[in-house]
Amino acid sequence: MSKDVLDFPESERPFLEPYLLPHNAEIENTSLPFVTLTFATSLDSSLSIAPGARTVLSGPQSKAMTHYLRSRHDAILIGVGTAVADNPGLNCRIQGVGGYGGGDNLQGQPRPIIIDPTARWDFSKETQIFQLVRNGCGRAPYILTWNPSPPTKQKQILEEHGGKFITLDITTPESETGRDLDWTALLRTLKKEGFNSVMIEGGSGVINTLLEPSSQALIDSVIITIAPTWLGQGGVVVSPKRRFDASGNAVAASRLANVKWHPFGEDVVLCGRINP
Amino acid sequence: MSKDVLDFPESERPFLEPYLLPHNAEIENTSLPFVTLTFATSLDSSLSIAPGARTVLSGPQSKAMTHYLRSRHDAILIGVGTAVADNPGLNCRIQGVGGYGGGDNLQGQPRPIIIDPTARWDFSKETQIFQLVRNGCGRAPYILTWNPSPPTKQKQILEEHGGKFITLDITTPESETGRDLDWTALLRTLKKEGFNSVMIEGGSGVINTLLEPSSQALIDSVIITIAPTWLGQGGVVVSPKRRFDASGNAVAASRLANVKWHPFGEDVVLCGRINP
Repeated sequence: MSKDVLDFPESERPFLEPYLLPHNAEIENTSLPFVTLTFATSLDSSLSIAPGARTVLSGPQSKAMTHYLRSRHDAILIGVGTAVADNPGLNCRIQGVGGYGGGDNLQGQPRPIIIDPTARWDFSKETQIFQLVRNGCGRAPYILTWNPSPPTKQKQILEEHGGKFITLDITTPESETGRDLDWTALLRTLKKEGFNSVMIEGGSGVINTLLEPSSQALIDSVIITIAPTWLGQGGVVVSPKRRFDASGNAVAASRLANVKWHPFGEDVVLCGRINP
Repeated sequence: MSKDVLDFPESERPFLEPYLLPHNAEIENTSLPFVTLTFATSLDSSLSIAPGARTVLSGPQSKAMTHYLRSRHDAILIGVGTAVADNPGLNCRIQGVGGYGGGDNLQGQPRPIIIDPTARWDFSKETQIFQLVRNGCGRAPYILTWNPSPPTKQKQILEEHGGKFITLDITTPESETGRDLDWTALLRTLKKEGFNSVMIEGGSGVINTLLEPSSQALIDSVIITIAPTWLGQGGVVVSPKRRFDASGNAVAASRLANVKWHPFGEDVVLCGRINP
């Protein structure tokens, strides 16, 4: 387990600020959290070279940026596929946050949220995320599931570390598969849990459903890193479902507004808002 | 037919210069032309929303840039699919080139090259490219084919306008389909025809085969425009064939070096060279 501390210099932070919930923001009395969608892709829009493969795409600066962004959100959210594939730490390793030079109170450490509809994630105490919790370097996850009886062993591990299962019905009424996410209900649940800002990190299933017409308006800002690489056909691709206009013609699935491109090492960071 | 003149300000040109064959360059005694690969995609790496659809992705500045780049190449190359789908002009409309304020000598107008293996492009005298030729606004195409007997009607139209068919065998020996391009042979043929620089514009078939391991080294520079839009699943995607290392593991198909990202209106322009 790594205790590497990352540095994201003050000088690099201003370009992100307009796309984040301000420090000490007056939280409006809304039922939804501020949602940031963030991920890194290749030029051919792949998150990784194959399902289950962990692909290092972006450079060290982008990694530090991701951890800085985590420090600016109350919660960070991924799908169970990513949890299983990557065994991620899901903490924040920026210099000065709790556990990384910022004391033992976990200040600046986001709450990991895992969407795991069937509660299939078979973690143990040795899974990285729980090791980090025991070392005072991160928070235990909250697992969103619609399995009304998650496995007892899993429930115990979670609760021992300060996490929990949150069981809810997050399928949509019109769902074809019965398993599409109702993002509005999901995000309302997170707001009720006290999270004013949520950073959604992946994987492709989570990102692609969030970018669908029915849910993309829930996104407050988008921060994407693009690496100057083609991973090639067969990668895990970000591309939302096709959208059609009233006449049945295919139109762009989603377009960003308030766009800013920030060259960043070999990569570029794209910040924007969803064009309603 | 449009006679709109485009302006690409001097101030915008310097960032492209390192990625182009210099003005009045000493042409080395090589058997290959300088090759620039250039195209515009969405965030999900689509050239257009559906096969045969013409999708305006990038802004007016990027369009002017493309025409400026054309003025810097002896030839511009597309596949027959794009010729059929778009009925493109394939000329250069930058202020000051031949036919657009630069006199009647076609100075700065590139030669359009169409790859049409079976000579299936069913053009007529009214096809846009020939109208432009008759109006003194562009050159007639050279059509690369391996059909030894292209249709007589097509041959006549071409030759009346100053174009021609060039018949060659451009399949590779190991070709699975018998229709893969031998890019080396093709580019050598263009060099023999006197073209010292070739700009390859699309479509996806042309781009994806050029980016394969066997041919990507032929590319001297890459200039890509990315628009902050997701077109959605089902688009015409740029993504080369998967590549494997000696151990059989999938690795990135291609990576750029000497990378420069240039924000450009709402879009970004990525310049780079293929990392050998």
